[in-house]
Amino acid sequence: MTRDDALALDAADPLARFRGTFDVREGLAYLDGNSLGPPPRTALAALDRAARQEWGHGLIRSWNDAHWIEAPLRVGDKIGRLIGAQPGEVAVADSTTVNLFKLAAGAMSLRPGRRTILTENGNFPTDGYAVQGLAAMLDGRARVRSVPAHALTGAIDDDTAVVVLTHVHYKSSIRWDLPAVTAAAHAKGALTLWDLSHTAGALSCDLTAAEADLAAGCGYKYLNGGPGAPAWLYVARRHQDAIASPLTGWMGHAEPFAFEPGYRPSRDIRGLITGTPPVLGLAALEASVDLQLKADPVLVEAKGLALSQMFIDALEARGADPALRLASPREPSRRGLHVAFAHPAGYAVIQALAARGVIGDFRAPDIARFGFSPLYQSYAGVWDAAQAMGDVLADRAWDLPEFHERAAVT
Amino acid sequence: MTRDDALALDAADPLARFRGTFDVREGLAYLDGNSLGPPPRTALAALDRAARQEWGHGLIRSWNDAHWIEAPLRVGDKIGRLIGAQPGEVAVADSTTVNLFKLAAGAMSLRPGRRTILTENGNFPTDGYAVQGLAAMLDGRARVRSVPAHALTGAIDDDTAVVVLTHVHYKSSIRWDLPAVTAAAHAKGALTLWDLSHTAGALSCDLTAAEADLAAGCGYKYLNGGPGAPAWLYVARRHQDAIASPLTGWMGHAEPFAFEPGYRPSRDIRGLITGTPPVLGLAALEASVDLQLKADPVLVEAKGLALSQMFIDALEARGADPALRLASPREPSRRGLHVAFAHPAGYAVIQALAARGVIGDFRAPDIARFGFSPLYQSYAGVWDAAQAMGDVLADRAWDLPEFHERAAVT
Repeated sequence: MTRDDALALDAADPLARFRGTFDVREGLAYLDGNSLGPPPRTALAALDRAARQEWGHGLIRSWNDAHWIEAPLRVGDKIGRLIGAQPGEVAVADSTTVNLFKLAAGAMSLRPGRRTILTENGNFPTDGYAVQGLAAMLDGRARVRSVPAHALTGAIDDDTAVVVLTHVHYKSSIRWDLPAVTAAAHAKGALTLWDLSHTAGALSCDLTAAEADLAAGCGYKYLNGGPGAPAWLYVARRHQDAIASPLTGWMGHAEPFAFEPGYRPSRDIRGLITGTPPVLGLAALEASVDLQLKADPVLVEAKGLALSQMFIDALEARGADPALRLASPREPSRRGLHVAFAHPAGYAVIQALAARGVIGDFRAPDIARFGFSPLYQSYAGVWDAAQAMGDVLADRAWDLPEFHERAAVT
Repeated sequence: MTRDDALALDAADPLARFRGTFDVREGLAYLDGNSLGPPPRTALAALDRAARQEWGHGLIRSWNDAHWIEAPLRVGDKIGRLIGAQPGEVAVADSTTVNLFKLAAGAMSLRPGRRTILTENGNFPTDGYAVQGLAAMLDGRARVRSVPAHALTGAIDDDTAVVVLTHVHYKSSIRWDLPAVTAAAHAKGALTLWDLSHTAGALSCDLTAAEADLAAGCGYKYLNGGPGAPAWLYVARRHQDAIASPLTGWMGHAEPFAFEPGYRPSRDIRGLITGTPPVLGLAALEASVDLQLKADPVLVEAKGLALSQMFIDALEARGADPALRLASPREPSRRGLHVAFAHPAGYAVIQALAARGVIGDFRAPDIARFGFSPLYQSYAGVWDAAQAMGDVLADRAWDLPEFHERAAVT
């Protein structure tokens, strides 16, 4: 494969029309959309309108006139279309961590008598922290059990209330078989809670077909909703009447503006919402999701996997450094849309690449991580990024003191 | 008092210079800043910069380069200066409801063996819902006891872990004596958790002098941080080592980017943070708080009370409707910066006023509520608003069908 082959793929790319809709500077190879997606131009315009028109001029009236009050469910429904949920099954609220807490607690309420929250060793830390905090609070009524991935389905038993997993692993990019694990959990009477932070906007996903129970995810990765964008949560309709959220707030009340003294949950997805919705963040997120909805998820996944495979192949063809090791599955269908390489100087490699306009990121202890976002990346751009990585490794360009200085956020 | 007297007060107003810094349309009497403050121009500019420069061009690098990662504590410290907190005692995070849940749970962890969460009848509903949800989760280890306001301090006993109150009541505007209640709680070994949503940016407040324990509040009322702005929480430094937050997420971990499997709390205010900070909302909030910090809180409170007293006096002088009744304390020092009037057609009165460019709001069953925000309101504007209210009542202008149609958000 050559750069001309990459250019030919770009010429034939059915998603190429999306590239101009993002505000990414020319010459920057941004391979970190799996951490923070760039802004669609329409998201910047929506944010501006929400701030200047709706907040500035509409003021309090915009709760009704600009439909702010409906935004959590309206945007939730749109995200739901990206993951195969039905209308009324997704709401935008809080952060991913808070939503995981609510849903794990909700799962315990749906499976009374069962005590185990099952997860895999090495799951994204905050997912583990959320359920550890929940178990501490439930004081003996819940415990977190963490097992190696290969032992996970075998560990589901009659005490398992819920299996908590990240669909695509944040570091390795290993993708769980979501329908199979869900079926295995159901076979034992357990529920599943999926963290879809690396899935929504990246992979084709059908929660309805999988008979999924609960899910949550962030808005700022492949959904491009902006830094710290509001997160979302999914509860299958069949669970909505019985699930009890522990974070009971006025926006989840059956009648929020009746100002009743006692909490009475809304018996639908709104019952999982807690506080006042983050309107400005919702405005940017909604516009970004609207853009995403214009792209066929099957094409998005296929291009993302093709880009990542081209990056792996082009880099390995260079044979620039024997210390470099692919730390993601070699088989594309077992990955999400990012790829991890282990290298002893992983942190410095990422810094040296950034100095050349190629943005990836680092995950301790030695992982250089690159994300492939089909709406704004080109095959030629990814080809060039692979060559830049090959150059950095071949020339040991990372071996300068300034590339080893650790920043607050790595 | 005449309109000329109001104009004379404006001419002598030391806070008059702030009026031009807000983007409020000419001719609009906006008396609902106690629900949603209008945008300072600097907040709109900060939001624009955060979105276009920091997100759009800085992308992931802005976590370090634009100091996003420090924003929750940096903005927290700024809010802390408005309420008499010390540096390192306030963080911006989540919604007010979620923060109340975290702090009430934290209070239970600081007072093991005590079971009672004490509050007043008619406290803002979401404050009650938050602790009801907590008590349900703690399943016998906590209970919520709600008593009439006059019986509150007498109800604090040896089983009271925490007293949860809103400093200024959302409906009546009755202001609790924060230092006195805090001292009464301490005398019984209990803690206090204050909801300062109607206090920060409105009233002079000194949490340090009062030896307050815990507090939370929203960013979108007198702080003018925007619709659904991030909320904040306060924990006195003496409690920070021992308090346990139930919402354990990666941003509260002692080393967030070490990605350790087990949760290990940061033993400072950061330990109360949970998920990824809402960067765009923080940007608007920070600029708004920066503006607020330029105004002396003593002057802010004095002008707010003077405006509200003038509104009451001017309206009552009209004697326009015997059905109108002041539903807030007549003594200014016992109020916050909003004033409530009961009227059988309260909802329709508010709608009829809005049609004349005077924006207040309604709280069930019969309260017309008006907020007085010293940075952008003038004496003459408030005088005119009182006359408009007098006209609406005298002419029964509210008695039209369209003013009785209820919107989703009242």
